[in-house]
Amino acid sequence: MPLEKIVLASASIDRRKILERSKVPFSVFATQVDEDAYKKEITNPIELIKTLARLKAITARETLKKRGEEAIIVAADTVIYHDGTIIGKASNEQEAFVILHQLMGTQHSLMTGIAITDTKTSKIVVDHDETLVTFSLISDNEIKEYLKLEEWKGRAGAYSLREAASLFVESIKGSPSNVLGLPMSKLRYILKKEFEINLFATSTNLI
Amino acid sequence: MPLEKIVLASASIDRRKILERSKVPFSVFATQVDEDAYKKEITNPIELIKTLARLKAITARETLKKRGEEAIIVAADTVIYHDGTIIGKASNEQEAFVILHQLMGTQHSLMTGIAITDTKTSKIVVDHDETLVTFSLISDNEIKEYLKLEEWKGRAGAYSLREAASLFVESIKGSPSNVLGLPMSKLRYILKKEFEINLFATSTNLI
Repeated sequence: MPLEKIVLASASIDRRKILERSKVPFSVFATQVDEDAYKKEITNPIELIKTLARLKAITARETLKKRGEEAIIVAADTVIYHDGTIIGKASNEQEAFVILHQLMGTQHSLMTGIAITDTKTSKIVVDHDETLVTFSLISDNEIKEYLKLEEWKGRAGAYSLREAASLFVESIKGSPSNVLGLPMSKLRYILKKEFEINLFATSTNLI
Repeated sequence: MPLEKIVLASASIDRRKILERSKVPFSVFATQVDEDAYKKEITNPIELIKTLARLKAITARETLKKRGEEAIIVAADTVIYHDGTIIGKASNEQEAFVILHQLMGTQHSLMTGIAITDTKTSKIVVDHDETLVTFSLISDNEIKEYLKLEEWKGRAGAYSLREAASLFVESIKGSPSNVLGLPMSKLRYILKKEFEINLFATSTNLI
């Protein structure tokens, strides 16, 4: 069987780290897609993340195909859903404070859409995963101290489970890797069932 | 207010990493305690982990006191509870296989006891946290591939949530950091309430 190359179509540090820590050999190819138009139009969070993951995957696939590269492409999009509102990334520290202040002492839903596609066949599989996250109630001063760590930057919901947010993540219900932006158990399952790729490989030999 | 020094009385890599990633300044002082006698005697998992965490904390505290060092000591002990049986660390790869084979496709409980004590006052607080972990059903060959990564070494239940085990951790219910051996949200709460230490500090100034 030929060697399959996995490409992560995402600039997210957390996604890259979780793939690295899972010992999955991969490379990164992040594409620029115009997400804003979709975010304004689609109000259903699951529809939004699946649409954006699909868009990222197809954009990366078509670019790689033009270059004559063969790969299995993994793309994802993550949002937080709280009180009927979709929450994405904060664009500044003040916005991050408002988001975190609103989430403290409550439960929110962390949703990730994933899209997996093959440059050779153009087959695409799109799915999503959802994890419920409960934050402890911490003070405004503690939120401000947390913001100084700058973990809010580039993260949906202005926190990263992998880092100091563990201090106020009281409990979760669902996949922990999904909270980091890549539901690994689901990814493993889809790659095995739909693309005949077994992620339990210790070397670069993915098949 | 004086500067408080946090000492982690544990040799566990996962515990050290989660404290580091949480940006908590600390040093490590692991003591040798004879756990085996307790493991044979105590059949209740919560009693066992609390007893061992307390033992580790007191051993470290008394040693540091003799040296004239002042510190807040954090100790922990983790076991897995499955089907009425306490599961600790595997002592070889075969044992690790038996443990993982038994856990695949089922739910187990991950329990961590923590003990926090102050060299100055000898005050000690002991608590525990519990997280339910559900594994996907993966094949014996996949378990064997996973074992090659050697993550089973030194870990209760022969896996580490921080690494490739995320490929088969389908979902958890409870604190994610607890699965890594240190319930961070609970630790933050106890340090604040019982020891007046605020972990949301970005520098070495812990108070």
